[in-house]
Amino acid sequence: MGNTFGRIFRLTTFGESHGEAVGGVIDGFPPRVALDFTAIDSLLAQRRSSNYFETTRREPDRVRFLSGIKEGVTLGTPIAFIVENQKYNSAEYDELKEVFRPSHADYSYQAKYGIRDHCGGGRASARETVARVVAGALAMQFLEKQGITIDACVTQIGNVKVPNTQHPDFAIADASPIRCPHKDTELLILNALDEAKNSGDTLGGVITCVVNGCKAGLGEPVFDKLGATLAHAMMSIPSARGFEIGEGFASALMTGSRYADAFNGDFSTKTNRSGGIQGGISNGMEIRFSVAFHPVVTTGKPIEAVDAQGNVRTVLPKGRHDICQVPRAVPVVQSMAAIVIMDNFLLQKSINQ
Amino acid sequence: MGNTFGRIFRLTTFGESHGEAVGGVIDGFPPRVALDFTAIDSLLAQRRSSNYFETTRREPDRVRFLSGIKEGVTLGTPIAFIVENQKYNSAEYDELKEVFRPSHADYSYQAKYGIRDHCGGGRASARETVARVVAGALAMQFLEKQGITIDACVTQIGNVKVPNTQHPDFAIADASPIRCPHKDTELLILNALDEAKNSGDTLGGVITCVVNGCKAGLGEPVFDKLGATLAHAMMSIPSARGFEIGEGFASALMTGSRYADAFNGDFSTKTNRSGGIQGGISNGMEIRFSVAFHPVVTTGKPIEAVDAQGNVRTVLPKGRHDICQVPRAVPVVQSMAAIVIMDNFLLQKSINQ
Amino acid sequence: MGNTFGRIFRLTTFGESHGEAVGGVIDGFPPRVALDFTAIDSLLAQRRSSNYFETTRREPDRVRFLSGIKEGVTLGTPIAFIVENQKYNSAEYDELKEVFRPSHADYSYQAKYGIRDHCGGGRASARETVARVVAGALAMQFLEKQGITIDACVTQIGNVKVPNTQHPDFAIADASPIRCPHKDTELLILNALDEAKNSGDTLGGVITCVVNGCKAGLGEPVFDKLGATLAHAMMSIPSARGFEIGEGFASALMTGSRYADAFNGDFSTKTNRSGGIQGGISNGMEIRFSVAFHPVVTTGKPIEAVDAQGNVRTVLPKGRHDICQVPRAVPVVQSMAAIVIMDNFLLQKSINQ
Amino acid sequence: MGNTFGRIFRLTTFGESHGEAVGGVIDGFPPRVALDFTAIDSLLAQRRSSNYFETTRREPDRVRFLSGIKEGVTLGTPIAFIVENQKYNSAEYDELKEVFRPSHADYSYQAKYGIRDHCGGGRASARETVARVVAGALAMQFLEKQGITIDACVTQIGNVKVPNTQHPDFAIADASPIRCPHKDTELLILNALDEAKNSGDTLGGVITCVVNGCKAGLGEPVFDKLGATLAHAMMSIPSARGFEIGEGFASALMTGSRYADAFNGDFSTKTNRSGGIQGGISNGMEIRFSVAFHPVVTTGKPIEAVDAQGNVRTVLPKGRHDICQVPRAVPVVQSMAAIVIMDNFLLQKSINQ
Repeated sequence: MGNTFGRIFRLTTFGESHGEAVGGVIDGFPPRVALDFTAIDSLLAQRRSSNYFETTRREPDRVRFLSGIKEGVTLGTPIAFIVENQKYNSAEYDELKEVFRPSHADYSYQAKYGIRDHCGGGRASARETVARVVAGALAMQFLEKQGITIDACVTQIGNVKVPNTQHPDFAIADASPIRCPHKDTELLILNALDEAKNSGDTLGGVITCVVNGCKAGLGEPVFDKLGATLAHAMMSIPSARGFEIGEGFASALMTGSRYADAFNGDFSTKTNRSGGIQGGISNGMEIRFSVAFHPVVTTGKPIEAVDAQGNVRTVLPKGRHDICQVPRAVPVVQSMAAIVIMDNFLLQKSINQ
Repeated sequence: MGNTFGRIFRLTTFGESHGEAVGGVIDGFPPRVALDFTAIDSLLAQRRSSNYFETTRREPDRVRFLSGIKEGVTLGTPIAFIVENQKYNSAEYDELKEVFRPSHADYSYQAKYGIRDHCGGGRASARETVARVVAGALAMQFLEKQGITIDACVTQIGNVKVPNTQHPDFAIADASPIRCPHKDTELLILNALDEAKNSGDTLGGVITCVVNGCKAGLGEPVFDKLGATLAHAMMSIPSARGFEIGEGFASALMTGSRYADAFNGDFSTKTNRSGGIQGGISNGMEIRFSVAFHPVVTTGKPIEAVDAQGNVRTVLPKGRHDICQVPRAVPVVQSMAAIVIMDNFLLQKSINQ
Repeated sequence: MGNTFGRIFRLTTFGESHGEAVGGVIDGFPPRVALDFTAIDSLLAQRRSSNYFETTRREPDRVRFLSGIKEGVTLGTPIAFIVENQKYNSAEYDELKEVFRPSHADYSYQAKYGIRDHCGGGRASARETVARVVAGALAMQFLEKQGITIDACVTQIGNVKVPNTQHPDFAIADASPIRCPHKDTELLILNALDEAKNSGDTLGGVITCVVNGCKAGLGEPVFDKLGATLAHAMMSIPSARGFEIGEGFASALMTGSRYADAFNGDFSTKTNRSGGIQGGISNGMEIRFSVAFHPVVTTGKPIEAVDAQGNVRTVLPKGRHDICQVPRAVPVVQSMAAIVIMDNFLLQKSINQ
Repeated sequence: MGNTFGRIFRLTTFGESHGEAVGGVIDGFPPRVALDFTAIDSLLAQRRSSNYFETTRREPDRVRFLSGIKEGVTLGTPIAFIVENQKYNSAEYDELKEVFRPSHADYSYQAKYGIRDHCGGGRASARETVARVVAGALAMQFLEKQGITIDACVTQIGNVKVPNTQHPDFAIADASPIRCPHKDTELLILNALDEAKNSGDTLGGVITCVVNGCKAGLGEPVFDKLGATLAHAMMSIPSARGFEIGEGFASALMTGSRYADAFNGDFSTKTNRSGGIQGGISNGMEIRFSVAFHPVVTTGKPIEAVDAQGNVRTVLPKGRHDICQVPRAVPVVQSMAAIVIMDNFLLQKSINQ
């Protein structure tokens, strides 16, 4: 349970970090769509970190599609894909077999299942997001043909924020190694990252995502409001701890008369404090939301873990870790947004007579 | 679509604000549970506003249970219930038939369905939350027998915040007319509400909710993490614009070494920055999250609506409206939390061998 | 669980036979459909038995719609409806409280839930089919606008079969008190029913259903083949024990070269042994299937029940019972077929680009 | 859509017959189950035909598990597996690219998706059942630990039936090359198969399946009755055209007083005409049902296909085909039964308090 997302466009994922492979199955992708495989690789490359942020380099993920595509065109049948995991030395992880690390999923998985894969985080590893990005890349290609685009960027790392989160410059962000939409802020963030690196620590941050070209009418009333489904999708990303749409938490500070978005004569609105969603349904304006991520818990420092008897056991960090995973999460946020929007787009087609 | 929530415990709701009735059907409620109907009425009473916050008084909602219960005990079959709507003068709403009010669901519903019930907000009205509260009251009774309790309170109205959102005093909050857990803050909030009332305006705010007694192991990995499902549930409440769990957005400001929750010898943690959820699965600590609400958009002031041709038409506000709906949303937040926790509790039973 | 059917068109039902009310909620019904309420009542009337087949007369079922409809037109929001149950004397059922009747759901419900409503069959009563018929009547109205019609009739009662089940004359069947499409056979069946009545016994039978006007392309591959979903729907009707599509069990007797349906030049087929479904997907031909029903188990004779200690206790039959429920099941079969076809019709709209 | 089956135990499958691979993902398999991989291979071997029934020999299917298992023990996370398809010469299928074969899925898939994989039947090929058998083999291992066993055998081929379908001798059937439970009948069937082979034709048949050890209480009321879910599962198997439970179609011939299964003092029943299911819920007796399969439509004879313009084009049969696929379908029937029973078993655990 819990490994499938969506209603019409349904993504099921699988795979442990250090198992044979990770991958997914997409059911409900429309037929007769010619795919651009380079674009998929490109989004996956954004998910891989540069050597700026992490302790060691890694090889590209090679996606192998197993079904649902013939001569580069979708068949309407399930699209399955796998990314093989690289071989590793399991002995390297023996030390972690007997201990629970703080703020990791070690203890909660053990409590849930009575067993866990202790190597590289197992199923709880952020490696599972590779399947989200493959599916998201496909969804983005479909949506682009409908005139819908999805952009995201980093608007905060640690305590450094970009000055304007309302209209980030995505062209700058896409060219930035840390996906920052503002040149001066980028410099400040790079300094903060250097500092974190030198002190063997890590930083969290915030990603802002904007959907353009989405017509009015997407989203379902009551429980599956568009904002609720986006929240579900975003809060399912590893390390996500907060979500807000439009003005979000800041809207609590406004009066009602200030919060309301007055209409123009073409039903666009003069302001967009609601972030493009009213009554849970898109209103045709740009959809804008943000996601907060806690810092990576594995730092360069020794870890105060406990064993099954509750005794503290100091272990050294294993495997790769990022100084800051937030720039790498940008394509994951985009991908989950694309999956949500595409699912709602397909669902809305069943309503239109 | 969109009117059902949950997997094992499934709530389906129905009803327009000014239709015949609102109500719901709960499928998956376990058999042989003796219900306390007074407790249901009591939670519903909390959802009704006092005359302090709204323009006119209203009558109690009377719940009628139609099925699934015999002699006060659940049968395991669907529990259906309705609350009749009071008669109203539809002519009163004629003015709204032809216009879209700003930041309401008028336009987005029209875009979605090509039709809408213009009376009292129709399906988009917060009146639908009455069904959530009935279901939540039942879920809370079940959870209490399992030792799980759910408390919530107001931690911010407008720009007034309670000093301590980590450990709110729920006893004080429950006795407060505005569900505020801190006496001095309550006074400040009441002043702010008076001010808003006098200026014909409205205020938003933040609710904090805490779940106690929840064992480690609830929640599903990857897409249906406990925090993701809670986010879905909370962001589906009318006017919700932000959600955070544990330290939430503040966690983005911390370093990784500061964020980690060190273990005690009994697997409890010394701090609880993660809000009781790690890797998407409960860790046995208190689950804590907050929800931000935008202010009610209908204020006492004339509304600059547009008609179907895009011409601005000034209309006067219709029906009741609250100065601040946030205190009334407290039982709704509790109810949705109860539904999520109970659903995950029942789901986890299928895993335990 | 188990009280919801469908994916886009979703029907959730509730209600015990002798509880307050039975009813349902339809989610996913398209907006802007003007409903014919007389047609709903007419289908419900067909579900009620005439005094020919049953021991006592009964009053018409009055449907009350609670939501999702304004001025006779659907809103796209959930359509909830209830049918109140008539008051009864619960003491009349006291004898059944302590015993399990053979081939009833008494024992299996008790085993499942540890509790049961012993009055009138509770949730296991065929009274729940009233909600199916209301939903089916709505679906049939929608489908008719798409040129899709659904007919059904009785093709066997006891050991009397109509001579031609391939092309039943539905006009004759609709005018027949026992829904028989063949005049001579009707007479034989009426004789068989009289005989059963006189001997205090009951008879089963078979219903054949035909869907016309359904375009090629409905149904989903692999698990949700159109025939599989129809089988699910039909076998969920109380007393259904067999299902076959096209030639059904007789196809096992044919050779492959005889079974194949050769094409005409317009992609219709010369024969229709597959019953309009190939590879699980409609091929544009008439969809034809049959459902077998066991006889009503409550006859006029004393019942050899057992009590909780396993002692045989003879009880007398309670409440109404039919000599043969099969004619009354005709609108239920039609309704479930309509729900399946409409659900697949709406789903297919999400695939068509 | 349509490629996932189950609620708690959820199988998602993928793969075209001549694509890269076929496979599946099982979500909801309980953790800490030690798997017997030899038993999986053994069930897969039963799905492969012997050279008795088909035109050419084929290689064993090698299953590769990708996730959800560590050191042979399940983790509770998704179990993904693939079976690579063998390379083939696509030119061999060029003739089929432009034509629709009668009673195949060629036309209905084209109508649904506007595209199809014409090689080897694509997604509509019975090759997809390999994934069902892998999942079924796992489910059977789990169920065996709960004391539940599932047996199936061939009870009819063409017009030859075994004399006793109530209590087939599964030991004989398991040793029979055609899974026939009766020695004399086996000889008659082998003769009929020889005759079909010599005339270049094919035969259909019936499989009977029996579930033992299933406690009372499995199945959900109303729409997801145990018989309805079994019907759904069975009718989703390629070529299935009929389903009956217990006495099935024969029950329509009985009177009510004859049909009823009288209780013994231990709540077992003296007869089992209902096939172990009453009111949609298991009653603790053996669950017995049958599935009818139409004959393979591709025979040794030339095929009268039509092209896209509706012109008849005679093509020669391509690839392998079976004289009779029914014996090979036995493990598929068992597998789908195991998936249904396990899913209901896990679901029932959430009800038991």
